[in-house]
Amino acid sequence: MSAVGSFFSDNEGTVAAPIMQALQAVNVDAVHSYGEDPTTAALEARLRDWFERDDLQVFPVVTGTAANALAAAQLVPPYGALYCQQHAHVNTDECGAPEFYTAGAKLTGVDGAHGKIDAQAFARVLSTAGDLGVHEVRPSALTLTQGTELGTVYTQGEVQALADLARGRGLGVHMDGARFANALVHLGCSPADITWRLGVDMLSLGATKNGAMAAEALITFGGEQHREALAYRRKRAGHLLSKQRYVSAQLLAWLEDDLWRELAARANRGAQRLSAGLDSLPGVTVAHPTQINEVFAVMPPPLVAGLHEQGFGFYDWPGGEANLHRLVVRWDTPDEHIDALLDSARRLVE
Amino acid sequence: MSAVGSFFSDNEGTVAAPIMQALQAVNVDAVHSYGEDPTTAALEARLRDWFERDDLQVFPVVTGTAANALAAAQLVPPYGALYCQQHAHVNTDECGAPEFYTAGAKLTGVDGAHGKIDAQAFARVLSTAGDLGVHEVRPSALTLTQGTELGTVYTQGEVQALADLARGRGLGVHMDGARFANALVHLGCSPADITWRLGVDMLSLGATKNGAMAAEALITFGGEQHREALAYRRKRAGHLLSKQRYVSAQLLAWLEDDLWRELAARANRGAQRLSAGLDSLPGVTVAHPTQINEVFAVMPPPLVAGLHEQGFGFYDWPGGEANLHRLVVRWDTPDEHIDALLDSARRLVE
Amino acid sequence: MSAVGSFFSDNEGTVAAPIMQALQAVNVDAVHSYGEDPTTAALEARLRDWFERDDLQVFPVVTGTAANALAAAQLVPPYGALYCQQHAHVNTDECGAPEFYTAGAKLTGVDGAHGKIDAQAFARVLSTAGDLGVHEVRPSALTLTQGTELGTVYTQGEVQALADLARGRGLGVHMDGARFANALVHLGCSPADITWRLGVDMLSLGATKNGAMAAEALITFGGEQHREALAYRRKRAGHLLSKQRYVSAQLLAWLEDDLWRELAARANRGAQRLSAGLDSLPGVTVAHPTQINEVFAVMPPPLVAGLHEQGFGFYDWPGGEANLHRLVVRWDTPDEHIDALLDSARRLVE
Amino acid sequence: MSAVGSFFSDNEGTVAAPIMQALQAVNVDAVHSYGEDPTTAALEARLRDWFERDDLQVFPVVTGTAANALAAAQLVPPYGALYCQQHAHVNTDECGAPEFYTAGAKLTGVDGAHGKIDAQAFARVLSTAGDLGVHEVRPSALTLTQGTELGTVYTQGEVQALADLARGRGLGVHMDGARFANALVHLGCSPADITWRLGVDMLSLGATKNGAMAAEALITFGGEQHREALAYRRKRAGHLLSKQRYVSAQLLAWLEDDLWRELAARANRGAQRLSAGLDSLPGVTVAHPTQINEVFAVMPPPLVAGLHEQGFGFYDWPGGEANLHRLVVRWDTPDEHIDALLDSARRLVE
Repeated sequence: MSAVGSFFSDNEGTVAAPIMQALQAVNVDAVHSYGEDPTTAALEARLRDWFERDDLQVFPVVTGTAANALAAAQLVPPYGALYCQQHAHVNTDECGAPEFYTAGAKLTGVDGAHGKIDAQAFARVLSTAGDLGVHEVRPSALTLTQGTELGTVYTQGEVQALADLARGRGLGVHMDGARFANALVHLGCSPADITWRLGVDMLSLGATKNGAMAAEALITFGGEQHREALAYRRKRAGHLLSKQRYVSAQLLAWLEDDLWRELAARANRGAQRLSAGLDSLPGVTVAHPTQINEVFAVMPPPLVAGLHEQGFGFYDWPGGEANLHRLVVRWDTPDEHIDALLDSARRLVE
Repeated sequence: MSAVGSFFSDNEGTVAAPIMQALQAVNVDAVHSYGEDPTTAALEARLRDWFERDDLQVFPVVTGTAANALAAAQLVPPYGALYCQQHAHVNTDECGAPEFYTAGAKLTGVDGAHGKIDAQAFARVLSTAGDLGVHEVRPSALTLTQGTELGTVYTQGEVQALADLARGRGLGVHMDGARFANALVHLGCSPADITWRLGVDMLSLGATKNGAMAAEALITFGGEQHREALAYRRKRAGHLLSKQRYVSAQLLAWLEDDLWRELAARANRGAQRLSAGLDSLPGVTVAHPTQINEVFAVMPPPLVAGLHEQGFGFYDWPGGEANLHRLVVRWDTPDEHIDALLDSARRLVE
Repeated sequence: MSAVGSFFSDNEGTVAAPIMQALQAVNVDAVHSYGEDPTTAALEARLRDWFERDDLQVFPVVTGTAANALAAAQLVPPYGALYCQQHAHVNTDECGAPEFYTAGAKLTGVDGAHGKIDAQAFARVLSTAGDLGVHEVRPSALTLTQGTELGTVYTQGEVQALADLARGRGLGVHMDGARFANALVHLGCSPADITWRLGVDMLSLGATKNGAMAAEALITFGGEQHREALAYRRKRAGHLLSKQRYVSAQLLAWLEDDLWRELAARANRGAQRLSAGLDSLPGVTVAHPTQINEVFAVMPPPLVAGLHEQGFGFYDWPGGEANLHRLVVRWDTPDEHIDALLDSARRLVE
Repeated sequence: MSAVGSFFSDNEGTVAAPIMQALQAVNVDAVHSYGEDPTTAALEARLRDWFERDDLQVFPVVTGTAANALAAAQLVPPYGALYCQQHAHVNTDECGAPEFYTAGAKLTGVDGAHGKIDAQAFARVLSTAGDLGVHEVRPSALTLTQGTELGTVYTQGEVQALADLARGRGLGVHMDGARFANALVHLGCSPADITWRLGVDMLSLGATKNGAMAAEALITFGGEQHREALAYRRKRAGHLLSKQRYVSAQLLAWLEDDLWRELAARANRGAQRLSAGLDSLPGVTVAHPTQINEVFAVMPPPLVAGLHEQGFGFYDWPGGEANLHRLVVRWDTPDEHIDALLDSARRLVE
């Protein structure tokens, strides 16, 4: 079993106690189904407050892939192009979900270091995009991952620059916030300040990796024109849960008393400590700034083999960089696991 | 609120205590994500036992719509026809999910009384199906709802007859078992005896309406040829949950100690009592045999208005039959609610 | 071979001489491809004149199925319902093309005699359509076939009534004009008077069955909001021809000097004669009014067998009416073939 | 008008006289529609002979985009990956047609010089493809363009190497032969020797760019397992022409007396002459070997401006290489146009 010493993924984590309690608390009586329940209404009110937008809409779902794909379906026509960082999760790890939900749109990967789209690269892509008219897919939307697949965080300025480029061409802007809480903790700004105030139209807000059981939300800022279509699309995709209150309750509890912040901060701190520890070892290099709860380290194969042998789990990272590995710290990763890994690593490199 | 006296839907129900406890019990440690966890493995083993099929495969999901649509995608090509009872849930209440997942297949409604497909009607449809060659969608699969949208249950002989017709034409056979437990209780036979032994290839097994939080499973009997494709399709639809163990744990608990049977039997009994009580009233007719947990009653408008006024919730039933109403008894509907409704009705018709 | 005495389909016909000459006439020099040619421009101008609409747009394609499916894709979202006569060509003979192009919308058949949608039946369908909210496909558009699959023609009043119902619910209105010319000849009204003046938004105008080689046009009346999307969709479907001028040239020649009228009138007259002749025979009944170039006759099996034996080709008509057969008169069906069939039939029934 | 001095595209060309005559020759009598005609049967027989495969099947269509997308739909599941050269026509110029027809598969661009996929790059891609299991699209097929988008031709050895890599991973192999005739002329080998003998499963055979009006064919070598599905898919896409004989007649005439070779050789020779002439000019470089009928030349902006001013038409080539232009020689480009362009260019660079 991977329980001890696992740094595979924050998806392996447990559910935080306040969230389990919220599920229990909501389990008292029959209520209307399909989201017509008071818990969901309370969640929308809470999110409007959190994001400082009275016209925010929320569509709770159970996976980030569903939230991302629904957003894509709404922002990109079947004949459209969705721009993303070329190694973004939507492009490499969702088995073509955006293509499925959009009925065949094209994801166009844009370059950039450390998992971020480079604004100049994006500007270059846009400068000729659409030149071929109907022979080419129509430039339609941009999606940013915050924090990125490589454990980094877009600054407000970076989001602004990319969103400005997108909006200048009439593109919608989506943010994949599978690790939005971790990014917020790093940035220290308000939710509004890193999303709609910079031009983000839709956000996939993820809680599952950060202490929930299965709770994500597609959020639109304004977007009245998308309301009906998103409701239909969610139903049709099998993502309108009959007992939706149990998803909404998770999200509410996650927002309550800033639980999201506590859990994300804990994970981020663990990752910082792990990152610093690994980086101090001879022959080990941290390849990308550790800004959320993921450490990307280039480690010599004997070290990796030794750690695996001792039961520490983590992934080789695909994409061609030699000896690159990802170690994820969960909200519930015990400090002792981090210590143990660093100790083992130290001994192994000596 | 609809909590008191609601007969709207079994989707409004709470989660049974053993299932809540199972969620808590599984929430102890990090485990592998995306279904590579021991709970999911245990579920598959348990289901193989329950269905007496060593080659059964299980794909846990969170909605019946997802399970049905995934099955359709696998049994019906984009250019195919899926036969269903014309008022079946897949045809009228899933917002075109099968059409979405199949990339545009056609659902062809077949007639029949009491929510069931009539074997003669199906035989007639099949007798000319395919005559137009490529100009017509290709006959591909049959889907049966067990229990049906109208609260009835296909007998073994009826399933056999329809499955034989289907298989005689090379069609796959799917069963939508959103209320499979309720049907099983009515039939008193084994799960195998109403599914694969009669020719059913895939089953959407539903627990959500019967005491779970959000737990359904697409089950294939044999179907090795579908394994890879279903796994990809589920992921791509956003229905592979990262923390899948929490779905699997619900299903395991639901099977444990025959919890499914206890909950379904309680709901069925309540519906029987409600049905008998209503049927005894002057001017009220129970329109379809009450075989599971749903009562379909033709009631005079003043009676309906009176009941609504007193806070009893239930739906008018669409489809054109005048004054037809559906009253659903949940696993957790208090006996007092049934008594109260019958008392009120009695007084109102006097 | 079926050449002599074939009444199978107008699709079997040859290409009218003026259209062959037009292809030759346009084959003189290199011109811009993909519809940026002067012939296509001339066609659009000619159609604007013909339909008395300066804002008409034309999208030439090579099959009626493509034109119909493109219109559906534009008028119906993936989660939408397209209403049609239940035996309409789009529903029964296009192998799910509208479902493909719309990414899975649902065609909802509406009843009505003689191949036409009955306005009362449509009103009944609309009266409850949408009641289930997102659980049900969204009412989105209506498509009418003019002339119908059963050889009849909607009157102006009938189109008006249906279009009014549709527009009253915010639905788009499409007309499948595979045999539009034949219908126009029957009606004796202007093209505008049977289309946009009554509320039709898009028309599939067919010339192939009436003397062209492969030339259809999707026409929008107004519809500026559809222009870009239709252009992309046509390209993406593989229906933007590189040498489009050869399609446009066919349509131009077909409009020139009212060739369309001459050819359609000839076919209609032949059908009238055939219809009257058959109807006068004992034991033979013409089942639907013969208003265009198709005769639907109930004929005794010995007569049918005898005619087939003598080499006369025509189809049994599917749909369950016993002994119903369709006989189509093409623009190029020789009068002698009609005479021969009637003579043979007379001898056979004696 | 672009007629004089146009080097924009072979799509601008006229129809060769023998093909026009064939259309006239087949226009004599009514025949069965939808491909059940003797001309289509003769075409299939002829192609079986040409390709030396008795089990070849042919699906005539009117655009290369349709042929390519149909092949993709058959070789790649919705959750699959189709590998192509990153600048291949299917990826950049078909507006997402393969994504549409496959219901959302992903095209994965592979690098390589001169428009060809590099075998080492493809091997590298394949070495990690599928590592992410269901999270990633499933490696499914390879498509090669012959001749390529950059006017080059894969040698037999190159096709063999790529097809071997593909088949070693169980991938299907498709060849986009929009300019197959031009490539064949360059290679001097038999059709079989550059297709199925090397492992190609399906070929989009294009005649439109080489003297036909609108005539392409999707060809399967063997592929009995694809026959039914392709027939349904073509119909459903609106690409089964009712009067298909007029497409088949074009292709037959194109094969007759090696017309394809005569036309392609003429175009290739013109391109050779144009290429050599341009390459001899100071400041001009031919960027890719001129192996078919396209010349890719880097030309100084003043020269380009001067040529445009004098009425010579050709495209800037997208993709980022500065001052790169494509000049296409058609089968019907007059020698005088080539002479005129070279003369003008010589004067302009002096």
